[in-house]
Order: sequence, then structure tokens, then C-alpha cells
Amino acid sequence: MSMSNKVIVTIAPTGGMASKAQNPHLPTQPEEIARDVYDCWNAGASVVAVHARRPDDLATCNADIYRDINRRIRDRCDIVINNSTGGGVNGDMVRKADNGYWEILWEERIKGMDAGAEMCTLDATTINASFEGRELLMNTPPSRCRELALGMKQRGIKPEWEVFSPTHILQDVTSLIEAGFDEPPYFINLVLNVHRGFQNAMPYSPRVLQMMVDCLPKGSIFCVSGIGPAQLPAAANALLLGGHVRTGLEDNLYYRQGELATNQQLTERVVRLVRELGFEPATPAEARQIMGLPRTDASVLPDFAPGAMVEA
Amino acid sequence: MSMSNKVIVTIAPTGGMASKAQNPHLPTQPEEIARDVYDCWNAGASVVAVHARRPDDLATCNADIYRDINRRIRDRCDIVINNSTGGGVNGDMVRKADNGYWEILWEERIKGMDAGAEMCTLDATTINASFEGRELLMNTPPSRCRELALGMKQRGIKPEWEVFSPTHILQDVTSLIEAGFDEPPYFINLVLNVHRGFQNAMPYSPRVLQMMVDCLPKGSIFCVSGIGPAQLPAAANALLLGGHVRTGLEDNLYYRQGELATNQQLTERVVRLVRELGFEPATPAEARQIMGLPRTDASVLPDFAPGAMVEA
Amino acid sequence: MSMSNKVIVTIAPTGGMASKAQNPHLPTQPEEIARDVYDCWNAGASVVAVHARRPDDLATCNADIYRDINRRIRDRCDIVINNSTGGGVNGDMVRKADNGYWEILWEERIKGMDAGAEMCTLDATTINASFEGRELLMNTPPSRCRELALGMKQRGIKPEWEVFSPTHILQDVTSLIEAGFDEPPYFINLVLNVHRGFQNAMPYSPRVLQMMVDCLPKGSIFCVSGIGPAQLPAAANALLLGGHVRTGLEDNLYYRQGELATNQQLTERVVRLVRELGFEPATPAEARQIMGLPRTDASVLPDFAPGAMVEA
Amino acid sequence: MSMSNKVIVTIAPTGGMASKAQNPHLPTQPEEIARDVYDCWNAGASVVAVHARRPDDLATCNADIYRDINRRIRDRCDIVINNSTGGGVNGDMVRKADNGYWEILWEERIKGMDAGAEMCTLDATTINASFEGRELLMNTPPSRCRELALGMKQRGIKPEWEVFSPTHILQDVTSLIEAGFDEPPYFINLVLNVHRGFQNAMPYSPRVLQMMVDCLPKGSIFCVSGIGPAQLPAAANALLLGGHVRTGLEDNLYYRQGELATNQQLTERVVRLVRELGFEPATPAEARQIMGLPRTDASVLPDFAPGAMVEA
Ligand SMILES: [Zn+2]
Ligand SMILES: [Zn+2]
Ligand SMILES: [Zn+2]
Ligand SMILES: [Zn+2]
Repeated sequence: MSMSNKVIVTIAPTGGMASKAQNPHLPTQPEEIARDVYDCWNAGASVVAVHARRPDDLATCNADIYRDINRRIRDRCDIVINNSTGGGVNGDMVRKADNGYWEILWEERIKGMDAGAEMCTLDATTINASFEGRELLMNTPPSRCRELALGMKQRGIKPEWEVFSPTHILQDVTSLIEAGFDEPPYFINLVLNVHRGFQNAMPYSPRVLQMMVDCLPKGSIFCVSGIGPAQLPAAANALLLGGHVRTGLEDNLYYRQGELATNQQLTERVVRLVRELGFEPATPAEARQIMGLPRTDASVLPDFAPGAMVEA
Repeated sequence: MSMSNKVIVTIAPTGGMASKAQNPHLPTQPEEIARDVYDCWNAGASVVAVHARRPDDLATCNADIYRDINRRIRDRCDIVINNSTGGGVNGDMVRKADNGYWEILWEERIKGMDAGAEMCTLDATTINASFEGRELLMNTPPSRCRELALGMKQRGIKPEWEVFSPTHILQDVTSLIEAGFDEPPYFINLVLNVHRGFQNAMPYSPRVLQMMVDCLPKGSIFCVSGIGPAQLPAAANALLLGGHVRTGLEDNLYYRQGELATNQQLTERVVRLVRELGFEPATPAEARQIMGLPRTDASVLPDFAPGAMVEA
Repeated sequence: MSMSNKVIVTIAPTGGMASKAQNPHLPTQPEEIARDVYDCWNAGASVVAVHARRPDDLATCNADIYRDINRRIRDRCDIVINNSTGGGVNGDMVRKADNGYWEILWEERIKGMDAGAEMCTLDATTINASFEGRELLMNTPPSRCRELALGMKQRGIKPEWEVFSPTHILQDVTSLIEAGFDEPPYFINLVLNVHRGFQNAMPYSPRVLQMMVDCLPKGSIFCVSGIGPAQLPAAANALLLGGHVRTGLEDNLYYRQGELATNQQLTERVVRLVRELGFEPATPAEARQIMGLPRTDASVLPDFAPGAMVEA
Repeated sequence: MSMSNKVIVTIAPTGGMASKAQNPHLPTQPEEIARDVYDCWNAGASVVAVHARRPDDLATCNADIYRDINRRIRDRCDIVINNSTGGGVNGDMVRKADNGYWEILWEERIKGMDAGAEMCTLDATTINASFEGRELLMNTPPSRCRELALGMKQRGIKPEWEVFSPTHILQDVTSLIEAGFDEPPYFINLVLNVHRGFQNAMPYSPRVLQMMVDCLPKGSIFCVSGIGPAQLPAAANALLLGGHVRTGLEDNLYYRQGELATNQQLTERVVRLVRELGFEPATPAEARQIMGLPRTDASVLPDFAPGAMVEA
């Protein structure tokens, strides 16, 4: 099975920021999410980037909710399941500390590793996110980056290294990779154009994307998440540079200016683009082969890995 | 007076991190600092980047100590005086918060604006600094960036925008400039190669420096601070790109591998380089003209601005 | 009529190198060319880059043949007509000189300006082209570049500046533009990936294309011609950088590896790509508006310019 | 003997373009050249790029004259001797052909290989040089590039690949290297800023130099020749990028604006710069070791190679 023209399409259906008030098509509850993911899998997606929401739709990393979502997805299809350890900007994820800072809570974030996902996001950096008039500190110094990376290795989880700037690649990601916390291929998600909301994040342009790709450690493969109107051009650009693509309402609520999207529409469009440019969307099995799933340097299989499922 | 071949040499004699144990030539007390600055001014420096230290040599932004240093410098020469609002990584600058974080204290940092300096550093970003086994959070969300920029404008202080990554330029610096908190020319100091100690900082390479320069807002002039062994090549590179240079023990303790430096030696070397490459070191008067000092958009003069001195 | 999302699709149906033996769909005779152009115009092309061929299918710049083709095209549609002054690599275009060199003949090339086209290609450089075991010198020193540029201005022809390397942009194109031989917008066609056949030509990569675009003189708009398998990715890349696109059998004989293309198929595919990425193919009227046709700095209209046609 | 901080300084004392009328310090006759080379060798130069001149000071590749110069140089010092196969823009080098072109004569150029030099320049490209109102074609199609490369290999001569544009590197140099005409390390001289006189040549800027270096084939080492006022900054830039440097009146007649230079002054300045930036000028023996002289893939030694001299 030749992988050279296979492109992994990741669907990020929900995220931790948007609300149904902004786009009524946004799936927030487990059954809604699972249905959307199934439609996107049918359209060509091979990885799902899951965020959990509470019954009131606000953000959480509650492992029970993640597990409920993961189960409903796995019951429908073999898509690769990825759970966020970033969480979101409200609900269980945030609290005002005694020092007056609002924070995205570390103790909540790490729960994202406990729901049996094959992959988890690993945000190896410290940012301030500005949302709804609040500045939310997401403090991830090097020691916490190591704690996340170690926690994933111990659970057999493959990290999706989520980076917003060349510094994130050159510093923590490279340090942790060199320290043996991941094995090649390293799967690095370049998130671009979230710079209006996140301190320490880069805008999207072809030049910026090229520069970020140039910074990747040897042995990496990459995916690009363009935020908002950058979603579509950044995906096309990723394909030109030999990368993989992410789409979905987490990153972008609109199909085009003034027209709200659905996850299925966004997936179908990017899959058309993948094919038009001469590539094929990878199946989940091919995506696992490309990304090196399951890890060979871990002794346990996450609950929702296909092999574990067989045994369960 | 043509300015086109004049280069501003900034001397950063002390900093907020190093100790006399690391380099006995490091000036820490007001009289030591003033003497070093005078020697460097004689060697061609036209701006001094001052950090204050307590009597026990640990870091502080105590305005009285800054004022003492500033006075002793001004008594000796007309060099442009710049006080840090970053402070340092120990002494008065740090505290362990209830949430368990060590922090570089905001309430200390802002005291750096209160000692009559013509310029102050403005670190418009959030970083984690790792020193001596501690991870120190320097939390500067956009609201604090604005507070610093406003405080400087109100006091007639010209900001030295200190940046470590392209995101710092593209985000907060550009936002604050567009919001009118500074007037052209914007003086931006590109600090490179502090990436081993600071999260969200870039290494030095000619390619990285070119890329950072490409990100500068229109109307900017720039200075380059290469840290450690990058000090000398980064200075040469700055000259090739039309920029200004910084030297001194704050950034680099060694003259060459294994040989401790003095501030005077470092200044003399970079001034030789400036001249060898066909430029001339600017005088303090020329440096003020190049940088637009004093500000025309402020109604007060800092105490140590030459004009204010005349009146005092 | 807002032009900001309009993309000019140029169809280059024939070229001066390929033969029907290589691709039987290649139109070489006037009626074949005109029919293909009409189909491509229906599919969304707004400019046609015409090469003339003799009755034996070999290359020529014979103005009568060009005029015959131009007339048949104009009888069918309002597409912008562009005639090559490069010619081709056999037939009337080449001769072995006394010094032993094979040359692409200057006296033949300039005939391309005499057939009433609204635009002509202007290859402002000297290359050696290697074809069928022959090395063909196309000698275009600065004096000939000026002669071409002046000849076009005198005839009211808009140049399509055809460049293969950053030097072509930075040297002759920029010199001639600065000397007043064209008026903005300058229409520059970046031809990439012909480096195996042409000395002094660049391969295609996203990095190379970005670099070439960075070299363009102020006031330029650009089109990208990717040769061979680079045709499709280079077109997508052009769109990401705000450029226009060229397709057709002149540049690429295959729809995909191992599958010969038709001009119509290639046009349809690139137009789908244009639309999928959120742009619209320009009509010929819109293309003329975008490119500044007819020239305002010339006193005559080419015969096949729409205005001239009305009068005729 | 560690080579990591050794920099090869090439002196190009004469060239094939300038005259004593432009700079009376220009050495043109064998004894003048040898004396200058000896002074520059004493100042730190380890390679000499020789051009021959006739008794009337006009350009030639006459092997007897080259041999006379080479002998006088070798009698004085062990500097690496490099003879030009580009020649120059007047004298024996040019003729007006029947087709009306002025040409830099191929049959003269290749004589440069016949005077026993250890290295020769290899200009693997076709250019038009504009001098004194004449456009001089230097036609070097791929077949001639191969002839030069083969001729050098057969004579045990190490090529100095002289390139003016990224295309020269990516095309002929890379092709010939891949075809086995040289062995690593490949010594590539990046000539920048000759773009006003040579078609297909790049200007100097830090960005251009970085881009050219990025194009070098694996196994290359490089030298930079900045022409005119670019000589000094391009040399500094070369050092920052890990390259070697060239100086001398061939490339630049002035020490600074309005002040004519001597070869010795230019050498002394660049050697000061080499040392100031922490490097050491290589000795000729070290230069031979760095460049891989003599070739191991050739069965003969050039007459002026040190080993041949011993035997002679
Ligand atoms: Zn997410
Ligand atoms: Zn400081
Ligand atoms: Zn053509
Ligand atoms: Zn030469």
C-alpha cells in the first residue's frame, strides 16, 4: 500500500470556543458529535479531533464525557480518535485565581488523557487567550510540557503536537522529541491565524507556513489548521508542501463569507480539493500507518485503539 | 548632519540574571555601573540599558536605585538612559504565588518607569523563564502591554520594544503601535538566542534575523541583541541589514570561548566592527535624533532627558 | 465591477515545441487552434497564448499564419489574444549559423508582433534551449530586449513579460519598466520547471515561486506557468499568492501521469480549482480591465483589440 | 589541525575588465601581479585568482602568459594558484562574429586550463556582458560546460564553480557534479552584484546570498565575491554563513567611496574582519586541505601543484 499520495484529513467538529449561538450546526453533545463525525468519515475524514462539552454546552475535559463521545464515535466507524488536552475557554476549563488571573486550568486539561483516545493534543507552550473580554492564561512551562508528554507515552497515546509559532517547534517540541517522549514520525499540527485571540500565535500566509515547515524536526509529518478564513487556503497550501489537512467548525464557522458551514460541507470541500490536486484521502487504517499508530514505544494500548477494541 | 551611516551602539552592562560569581567584571552597584557606562560611552556607546540591583546584587526595579544609577551616569556623560521594566530573575522581582507559580512580579516591573529614564524596555509578551531550577512566569497579557505603553507615553518615555519572536512583533507591538502608543520611528530590539532559557524565544541565525526584520512594522528601526556566543555574529548581521547593535555583559559574559569579557572590551570590539564595515558609531545626540527623542507626542520630559536637566 | 476575486485563466493551447506525435490532441493548424480556444473560452479562459505552426506543424512566427489564427479566434469569441515572440525550437525558427551555433532566429521572433495581437510575449533574456540533441541559443541581449519593448509600445501591444529566473525580473524587466516601455499594471508570467530544457530557468517549488514573486517590481500582477507535472500545483500556488494562472498543452501534455490531456480538460480543471478556492474566472472584458488593455500610452490599437474590431 | 574556524581568503588582483586608467594600482603584467600576490599572501590570502593580460594590458587566456605569471607567483610563495577560463572583455578574448555578435571566444577561454594551475574557474552558464557599449555574448551551453569540466578533470585541475544566479547552481553545476566531474568538497564561488553588467546575474543582498547558499548541492563549500561596493558586506555575510571570502581589485577598485584601493589594503581589511569575527585565515596548506587539493580522482598533478613542483 503506497502512502505517498495519501492525505490525512482531520475533522475538528466542535472545539472549545464556539457556541451554537454562533453556528447552530455546531455539534456539542455526544450524540451530535458522533453523528457529525460519522458523516465526515463517510466524506473522507480519517482522524477526529474531539473536544468535550458539558450538558450546558460549555467546555470541559471531563473524561466521562470524552469517553461517552469516543464510544459513540467508535460504535459507528474506525476513525482515529484524538482528544484535546487544551479544553476550551469557559465552563470547567477556567477559573479566576487568587492573584486575579483567569486561567485555563492545568488540572482540567490533563484529564483529556484519561478517556482512552489514541491521540491527544499536546500544546507545548504558554499563551494568553483573549475571549469575551477575559484574558485567559494557559500556563504550560517546560515541566508541564514534559508531564503531558510522559503521561501520553505511559498511556500509549500518540501526541498531536499543536504549535502556533516557530518557537513552539524549535523549543519544547524539539526538546521533548530529542528527550525521547515520542517516536517518529512526529505528527505536528501547525495552527495558523489564531493570532488575534492567542498571544504567541502566527498569522497565516504562504511565507509563514513555509517558514514553520522549515523549522520542523527531522522525522516529522505535519498537518495545517488554518483558523477562520485561512482554513481553505492553508489547507491548499499544506497539500502543496506535502502536508496533511484539518477542517471543521472548531477552526472555522463559515463555508464562505456570510454563509455558515456544516462539518460535512467543510469535509467534502477539502476532500474535493485533495482529489483535484492529485491526492487521495487516507482511510483511518492508512492514517494510522502514516502516523505510526499504535506507538511501538509504549506497553499499553488506549481503550479506543482498534486492537484494544478487538480484545475488549 | 547625515544619519545614514550612523549606528547606535547600546551598552547593556548588567542585566537581571548574571552574577559577579559568573564574571567578576559585572558591574552591579550604582557607582560600578556608572563607571563602566562612562568607559563604554568613551568607546562609542550612545545608549545604556540599565538594570538595577539591590545592595546584595540581586535584581530589583526599585526606582530609587534606578534613579541613583541614572544620576551617576548623567553626571558623567550624555548617553541615552534606558531603564528595564523586565527586571530580573531573582531578588525583588520574583515571588512564589499561592497557586505555586514563581512569577516575575508585575508590580515590580512597572516601577522601572518611575526613575526618570528617557527610554524603557517594553516586553510585550508572556514568557516562562527557566533559571536555577525554577520556572518563572512573566505574564504580560495584552492589557498589561497597553498599561506599559500608556505609562510610558504619559511619562514621555520612548519604548524600546523588546521582542524575542516574530509573534511579539506581529501581535502586541504592532497592535500598540497601530493604537497610537508610540510615534515613528519605532525602536525595536530583536533579542535572539535566549531560547534555551525563555519559552517563546527564537535562536539566532541569519535566516531567523532576516525573517524577524521582515516582520517589522513600517516606520521601525531596529537593534539586535544576540545572547551568549551569538552576540558578535548577530551584531555583524544587524549592520548588514541596516540595523543598530547592542553589546555588554547582560547579553554575553565572554569575549571569546573561555575568556571572560569586560563591558569596555565588548564595546570596543563592536565599535571596531562598526567602523570596519564603513559605519560610524552615533553620538548620543545623533542617537536621540535617529530614535526621535524626546517624544513629540508627550507633554512631559523624563528627568534625565538632556532638556529636563537643563531646567533642573 | 469588483476585480478582487477575479482570476485570469490563460490558455496556451499549442506552444512551439510539442508535436501531435506526443499528444494527438495538440492543435497546430489555425482551425484546430481556434476550435480549442473557443472550447476553453467557454470553460472560463480569458486569454489565449498563441503559437503559430507551419502547414507541416513545425514552428513559425509567420505573421500571416498568426493573423489567420487570430482572425478565426476572434470570429468565435472575445478572448484576449496574445502572440508569442519566442516562436519555437524547429521549423522557421531555427538555423545553424556559420559559427556552428544553432539559433532561435531573432528576425523570425520579431514577426510575432506584426499580426495584430493585443498582447505579445516578451522574453527579456538569453537562454540555451536543449531539444532533440541540439543546443539552441536564444540570444536576447539588453539591446534586443529594448527593441522588443519599443516595438510593442509602438504597436499598442501589451507585453506579457515572460521570466524564468529572478535575474530576468530584477534585470531586464525592471530596467525596461523603469525606462517607460510599459505602464502599470505590468503583467509578468513566471514560467517555472522548464529548467531541464532551458539554461537559466528555475525549477518549481513553493519556495521558488514565493521568491520570484518577492522580486516583482511594484505595480506588477503575475501569472504562473508551471511546466509539465508542475502545472497543477503551480497554478494552485499562484492562487494562494494572489496571482493568475496559465494552463494548456504548451506547458503540459498530461492530465495526470500516463494520461494525455486536452486543452479543454486542463482548462476545466483549473477553473474548478479557481472556484473551489473562492475565486471566479475573469471574463475577457474583466481580464482586459485587470491588465490595463488597451494601453493608454500607445496611439494605435492592435487589429484584434475589440475596439479596433468595431471600427474595422 | 582543526579546520572549523579557518577561512580561505582568495585574492583576485587583476580580473579581465578593469584598466590602470581606472586604478593605477591594478597589476597587469606578470611581475606586477606576482609582487601583489606575494604581499597579499603575507597579509593572509591563500588562493590567487589569476587573469592574464597581454603586454598592452588587454585581456588574454594565452597559456604562456599565464604560465609566466604562475611561475613568478610560485617562486615567491605556496599560495594556491587558480587561472581564469572566463578571460575578459577585450583583447584576445573578443571578436565580432559574422552574425554581428561580439563574443567572448570559447577557443580562447579554454586555453586557461593549459598553464598548470591547480584550480581554474568554471563558468557554467551563458551570459551577455555589457561593456563599453558592446554586448558580449559568452555562450556556454551544457555541452561546453561538460567540455570544461572534463578538461579540468583530465588535467587534475579543481574547478572553482563560478555562479551568478541560483539557476547556475541548480542546473549546470549540479548536473556536472552529479555526473561525476568533480569530487567533494565542491568549491563554489557565488559572484553577486555584477547584475548591472552581466545578464543573468543577481544583485547582492543578505536575502539573495542566503537563497543562493540554500541552493548549493550537498557536499559544497562556498566563497563569496561581492562586486563593487558589495565586496565588503558580502564578505562579512559570507563569514556569518560559514563561507569563505574573496577580495581584490578584480571585484572592486575602491577601498571606500572615492578612495582607490590596493590589493594589499583590501586583503588586510578582510583578514582583520575574519579575525575580528573569531576566525583565522587559512594557510595555503590548510586551504588545500579544506578544498580537497590535489584531486584524488585525477591521475595527473598540475605543474604548479606543490607536489609536482617537488618532482620538477
Ligand atoms: Zn482543539
Ligand atoms: Zn534587560
Ligand atoms: Zn509560448
Ligand atoms: Zn575572474
